[in-house]
Amino acid sequence: MKLWDKGQSTDKKIEAFTVGNDRELDLVLAYYDVKASMAHAKMLARVGLISRKEGDALLEELKAIENSIEKGEFTIEEGFEDMHSKIEYLLTQKLGDTGKKIHTARSRNDQVLVAMQLYLKDEIKSIETAVSELFTLLITLAETHKSVLIPGYTHLQIAMPSSFGLWFSCYAESLIDDIHLLKAARKITDQNPLGSAAGYGSSFNIDRSYTTELMEFETMKYNVVAAQMGRGKVEKSLAFAMASLGGTLSKLAMDCCLYMSQNFDFISFPDQLTTGSSIMPHKKNPDVFELIRAKCNVLQSLPNTLIMLTNNLPSGYHRDLQLLKENILPAIETLKSCLEITTFSMAQVEVSQDILNDSKYDYLFSVENLNALVKEGMPFRDAYKKLGKDIASGSYQPNKKLEHTHEGSIGNLCLGEITRKMEQALKG
Amino acid sequence: MKLWDKGQSTDKKIEAFTVGNDRELDLVLAYYDVKASMAHAKMLARVGLISRKEGDALLEELKAIENSIEKGEFTIEEGFEDMHSKIEYLLTQKLGDTGKKIHTARSRNDQVLVAMQLYLKDEIKSIETAVSELFTLLITLAETHKSVLIPGYTHLQIAMPSSFGLWFSCYAESLIDDIHLLKAARKITDQNPLGSAAGYGSSFNIDRSYTTELMEFETMKYNVVAAQMGRGKVEKSLAFAMASLGGTLSKLAMDCCLYMSQNFDFISFPDQLTTGSSIMPHKKNPDVFELIRAKCNVLQSLPNTLIMLTNNLPSGYHRDLQLLKENILPAIETLKSCLEITTFSMAQVEVSQDILNDSKYDYLFSVENLNALVKEGMPFRDAYKKLGKDIASGSYQPNKKLEHTHEGSIGNLCLGEITRKMEQALKG
Amino acid sequence: MKLWDKGQSTDKKIEAFTVGNDRELDLVLAYYDVKASMAHAKMLARVGLISRKEGDALLEELKAIENSIEKGEFTIEEGFEDMHSKIEYLLTQKLGDTGKKIHTARSRNDQVLVAMQLYLKDEIKSIETAVSELFTLLITLAETHKSVLIPGYTHLQIAMPSSFGLWFSCYAESLIDDIHLLKAARKITDQNPLGSAAGYGSSFNIDRSYTTELMEFETMKYNVVAAQMGRGKVEKSLAFAMASLGGTLSKLAMDCCLYMSQNFDFISFPDQLTTGSSIMPHKKNPDVFELIRAKCNVLQSLPNTLIMLTNNLPSGYHRDLQLLKENILPAIETLKSCLEITTFSMAQVEVSQDILNDSKYDYLFSVENLNALVKEGMPFRDAYKKLGKDIASGSYQPNKKLEHTHEGSIGNLCLGEITRKMEQALKG
Amino acid sequence: MKLWDKGQSTDKKIEAFTVGNDRELDLVLAYYDVKASMAHAKMLARVGLISRKEGDALLEELKAIENSIEKGEFTIEEGFEDMHSKIEYLLTQKLGDTGKKIHTARSRNDQVLVAMQLYLKDEIKSIETAVSELFTLLITLAETHKSVLIPGYTHLQIAMPSSFGLWFSCYAESLIDDIHLLKAARKITDQNPLGSAAGYGSSFNIDRSYTTELMEFETMKYNVVAAQMGRGKVEKSLAFAMASLGGTLSKLAMDCCLYMSQNFDFISFPDQLTTGSSIMPHKKNPDVFELIRAKCNVLQSLPNTLIMLTNNLPSGYHRDLQLLKENILPAIETLKSCLEITTFSMAQVEVSQDILNDSKYDYLFSVENLNALVKEGMPFRDAYKKLGKDIASGSYQPNKKLEHTHEGSIGNLCLGEITRKMEQALKG
Repeated sequence: MKLWDKGQSTDKKIEAFTVGNDRELDLVLAYYDVKASMAHAKMLARVGLISRKEGDALLEELKAIENSIEKGEFTIEEGFEDMHSKIEYLLTQKLGDTGKKIHTARSRNDQVLVAMQLYLKDEIKSIETAVSELFTLLITLAETHKSVLIPGYTHLQIAMPSSFGLWFSCYAESLIDDIHLLKAARKITDQNPLGSAAGYGSSFNIDRSYTTELMEFETMKYNVVAAQMGRGKVEKSLAFAMASLGGTLSKLAMDCCLYMSQNFDFISFPDQLTTGSSIMPHKKNPDVFELIRAKCNVLQSLPNTLIMLTNNLPSGYHRDLQLLKENILPAIETLKSCLEITTFSMAQVEVSQDILNDSKYDYLFSVENLNALVKEGMPFRDAYKKLGKDIASGSYQPNKKLEHTHEGSIGNLCLGEITRKMEQALKG
Repeated sequence: MKLWDKGQSTDKKIEAFTVGNDRELDLVLAYYDVKASMAHAKMLARVGLISRKEGDALLEELKAIENSIEKGEFTIEEGFEDMHSKIEYLLTQKLGDTGKKIHTARSRNDQVLVAMQLYLKDEIKSIETAVSELFTLLITLAETHKSVLIPGYTHLQIAMPSSFGLWFSCYAESLIDDIHLLKAARKITDQNPLGSAAGYGSSFNIDRSYTTELMEFETMKYNVVAAQMGRGKVEKSLAFAMASLGGTLSKLAMDCCLYMSQNFDFISFPDQLTTGSSIMPHKKNPDVFELIRAKCNVLQSLPNTLIMLTNNLPSGYHRDLQLLKENILPAIETLKSCLEITTFSMAQVEVSQDILNDSKYDYLFSVENLNALVKEGMPFRDAYKKLGKDIASGSYQPNKKLEHTHEGSIGNLCLGEITRKMEQALKG
Repeated sequence: MKLWDKGQSTDKKIEAFTVGNDRELDLVLAYYDVKASMAHAKMLARVGLISRKEGDALLEELKAIENSIEKGEFTIEEGFEDMHSKIEYLLTQKLGDTGKKIHTARSRNDQVLVAMQLYLKDEIKSIETAVSELFTLLITLAETHKSVLIPGYTHLQIAMPSSFGLWFSCYAESLIDDIHLLKAARKITDQNPLGSAAGYGSSFNIDRSYTTELMEFETMKYNVVAAQMGRGKVEKSLAFAMASLGGTLSKLAMDCCLYMSQNFDFISFPDQLTTGSSIMPHKKNPDVFELIRAKCNVLQSLPNTLIMLTNNLPSGYHRDLQLLKENILPAIETLKSCLEITTFSMAQVEVSQDILNDSKYDYLFSVENLNALVKEGMPFRDAYKKLGKDIASGSYQPNKKLEHTHEGSIGNLCLGEITRKMEQALKG
Repeated sequence: MKLWDKGQSTDKKIEAFTVGNDRELDLVLAYYDVKASMAHAKMLARVGLISRKEGDALLEELKAIENSIEKGEFTIEEGFEDMHSKIEYLLTQKLGDTGKKIHTARSRNDQVLVAMQLYLKDEIKSIETAVSELFTLLITLAETHKSVLIPGYTHLQIAMPSSFGLWFSCYAESLIDDIHLLKAARKITDQNPLGSAAGYGSSFNIDRSYTTELMEFETMKYNVVAAQMGRGKVEKSLAFAMASLGGTLSKLAMDCCLYMSQNFDFISFPDQLTTGSSIMPHKKNPDVFELIRAKCNVLQSLPNTLIMLTNNLPSGYHRDLQLLKENILPAIETLKSCLEITTFSMAQVEVSQDILNDSKYDYLFSVENLNALVKEGMPFRDAYKKLGKDIASGSYQPNKKLEHTHEGSIGNLCLGEITRKMEQALKG
């Protein structure tokens, strides 16, 4: 059943080594392979490379396979090398030689390329939706807790007043940056490679504009060698965006782990999101956030892994590229689950009140108090001296009333502006 | 002269360890620091935090410093920790206490942030221009050599006919993908962070919209904590785009090194671009392309280095972030020189003619010849059998006339469409 | 069945997210968990923390579990979080409260640590054996083909004469370097962590020297916090060695792919190790070597992934460390299969004869011919001039007789010395 | 002055691009180049490739150059491509044609290789010495502060009692692991590559055993191709060890930053090691430790950068390898400065007393108190129930007397054993 079999019995070990876990991964991609095959069949019939009748027959069978995939009934048995072999087998079983004609003017190479790109386009959309949900939650949390103050740290030292409003919405606004990279990845992915065949095109008069339109690609990757070179480049582009997003989630998780420590005690979560022990009742281990952090940190190494895999290969197809699938597919699943679990968990966050009543946070306000004196007209140097003296003598009394009014500050979070920026980015 | 000096004599070693090569790097950034200071001064005067007269005085002195920078006369002597100290020193020397007022309502943190982002915006523009020049050259080369055939490889095995037209323009079209990532990096960078102060804003009634407009940022990073979190994230975003571009250049260089080998002999370059020896006259070492490849491969490790540097730090400023500068600045210079040298060198490429006359390339045409028989009406199986028999018996004669007409193929390179796609991307 | 369950029903999603694929991975580690539990039980009985009778009962049941593992009958059902839960369940089912006593003076943390380290010690031994087999094969191939010349390249340009003897044995000698790193990883792994409990030891009078001796660790990781910090560090150390070895295999595979290209045609392999097509009979795609290269390149990104996962975590256990398992275990399997397939494939290599008869390799000998003139007494400058003139005029006739006699050269491969060096390294 | 110049005027830009900062880096390596040249000259004279008189003359001049290097008077002017050109120039200026004879039977390739390996051997020794000093300090600090308790964390949650004794010495013992990797790197580096010439040896009857002995290499890299392949591999091996050490220092620095936060307040440092502000007197920013962390984190990306640089290059020299120098040399300087500054700073650490008096740490002792009840004979379940009840009712009173006696625990640090282990490792 192996397409490249030349008749010789192939050693089992080599078989296992070369096939890897392709069958499993292909269950995810098969749907897109069928979609692309449908577009290809329609095109073949339109330009006359197959008859209209042959085209209709192929479409009907492909439709049947699509149904079986959607019902979860599609399988790739051990005898088959991959989804392509299985689908070809199904078509040929039903349609005989007509089934084989689906391969006219295409090659395994552009078939894999187009299925992968269709799949990635869908996944990018899913990721965007999940980011958007987390964004909305964070904005809501910022609004709800906007007046609860927390210490702001620099160098992990207590530095300036901050607030839960600022903290929640800083991650919201930060997610917008990740959307820009996702959008770039989408642009790069949204170019039809079908028709590049083995990477050098063919002498058939195929109509690539038509398949581009049928599969709703924004444009086509014209140059057939460039289309082939997209393999790896497309995955890397998305990996960059995923790593960026992973970095944002990891940082939020790091903050949560720190803030849940008894040495901070800023936030907590219901018991089902933590682990503990009945003889250490204070202990609420942030396993969920530690795992989000860890998974997102591994995600951040994905671009490097993909570069390592593809780098210094001259142009043209190499079998190395097969390993892209087994690296990118599980990573996408991981990212989506991290997004989902972050949203699920953050929705249940409980914030501590009156954190700043603890006297160790008193000096938080010294810069504010200095600014107040300056605004009242005292020259900066004098104000600075006075405050320094008060602090040194122990007579300093922090004035904890804050009047931050500028855009993006504690008192003026600009949540509406940030939301509009996100909407803009999602459209972009 | 160190701003944070508390009076104690600081050990020299610690000084060297903490300052690093900031002075050298800051010579590049000083121009942008002055630009941002000008916007800040105007804003301070407008909202009344300094008088109009003070604002004018500051602007005049900043203008003078800008001039000295443009003339290459600006220096940062050993006594100064960095550009900020030096510029403040110059302002205070001239204007006394008014000079110090430039620091009203800002902090070193947002000062570094805004200077870096202004610098990166300019550099992104330069990189885009350089990419655009290389693109144009490659399109021209493709047009010039479009009818010269070369073998196309899969698995490094001779596979199908290709052409210099395809080869040059595949890298052109591939560069468009890199532009999409550069555009995303630009979007992420193009958000004014000024006013975030130490990362938590301030109680001064600053007008961040006004400085956004003055510095021609597309928007502002509203949330002050998000603005601070941009440090590192902005650099990483650009590093992703740079790594992508580095990957494209590295692959082109790899192809060049291979194609210059006597075992391929597809292209050559004038002597000043190669190295050799008079007793090995055949030897034309592709040092330039090897170094492009090597430098671009190191560039591809940049995102990873930046992630390693910033990862798992909780929110808020950490001194670690200082090292971003010494990692991103030289990398940008390297990328620009690689782009320049690639364009400079490729402009002098000499392509071999009649490569496919060598009999080892005869089988290149077998698939084409098979397709021709099929197009003439012979059933695929029969055509395949006939060809296999001819080849086995040694009677196969390759028909080297190619008729590739579909979009993006040897005979229809779509250079105009690709050029329009690039123009679109550059605008985006 | 989850050990940390506090009674609340835990959301299924969270469960899946936190448990991951631990059950599957633990099937590999369970054997070592049982081994360590046996040592622990013996020690507990010896120091009197359990009775001799309890100790004997535990040992008997652990022996039974060990048997079921060796027979492949051990399973970890969905209801169990991991192997530890399952093994505890089995012990308690049989022995009641005595079963639970196995947990006296230990914690899940040191239990995982010690099982992982025992497992890694075994795997390092397996990898060394596999390296040693490949080494022996390469030395044999070098001896067999020592007189067959090939071109030596610098800058991918034809440069100097080389030989299959040099080529095969250079990879053999290079493998010795990898053994040194494997030995370092073994040293780091070979330190008993059992007794560190949750990372801070305990107030029980356990005898760590005794368990060290029972499990045949070379030494113990004394400091309990250091023992805990070994988690991640041990894995990283091995990952370094694996990456080094991966680099060696990847380079050999790259050479094979290049040398199998029709543009070189130095080596070939039987059909079952290549893929092709009957209408492109020349095509022998080196899929196996491309996949070795690709898998070993991914392996080379493993250290980075592990660093990313563990970096910037303060001391003490974090749940993040759980992900080490799912990254290191499959990588070890991959490395072992790459070693096996490399040895399996290289054993079938066919080398081309008379490669240097092709006139494009004539200049290979110019340096040799120059040296010959010098050795005959002609001053270097004169010899160089004469040769340059001959070459320029076309009258140069390469003398292809080589007399390389120094250690490590074509004519004196020192295979015995290299073999002794390897033996020394394997002992080290 | 460029050795490979073929007479054509080489474009300045290309010159700058290809030479890079080699001149600067070579100032460090020149000493080792001279050392290796001395050994080479002695060998040439011994085997009769040059006369005894020529040998003596070369040695005398090389000695003079060595002196000028040691006095810091050696320079490489712009006209010279690198140290090799300059040294050859000096020799030829003094000795005429005899000066050129130093190049008999060697090539730039093995010249660079041997100089780099001699340099790295020296640097490895320096790093080991620095590690050893830090180790000794940490052991001393552990002994000094062994009875001062701190909380031990798991999941960043307060978990079990720990101590400064444990904390300081855990990093000491952890450094031993790094020494094992350094030793492996030394083994790999300690193999004489001289005589491999351009990577394929030569027809001269050189005596490589003699130069091995003269330069005090432990052994030789026999196979000349393997010797050439050492370029990159040697650097990677050391990079692995450096990354491991970097990881240890980074983690210590992370702990310090955290423990210096007001939310922990476990340790502090004198003012010259911190930065602050007079109106925020509490603020003692740990800049030094943040920079150690950051620099060591960048160091941890070095192996990846070197792999990226060298990966997927077929065997034989490539100009890419030139970039190894500019990546490894500064990294070594960075690592040494981090080691030095860590030792310098840790020597001044001030530890807080009575940390555990804070009631938030009371539950730290619950496990200990449980174990105490068990040791007194109460069945575990009953003890557990009793303690849980006491805690729930608020009647729990922590007994803070610890009796940890087992090896490596708070009460039995085994500092002597750890010291002996380090001594053993340093010898290994």
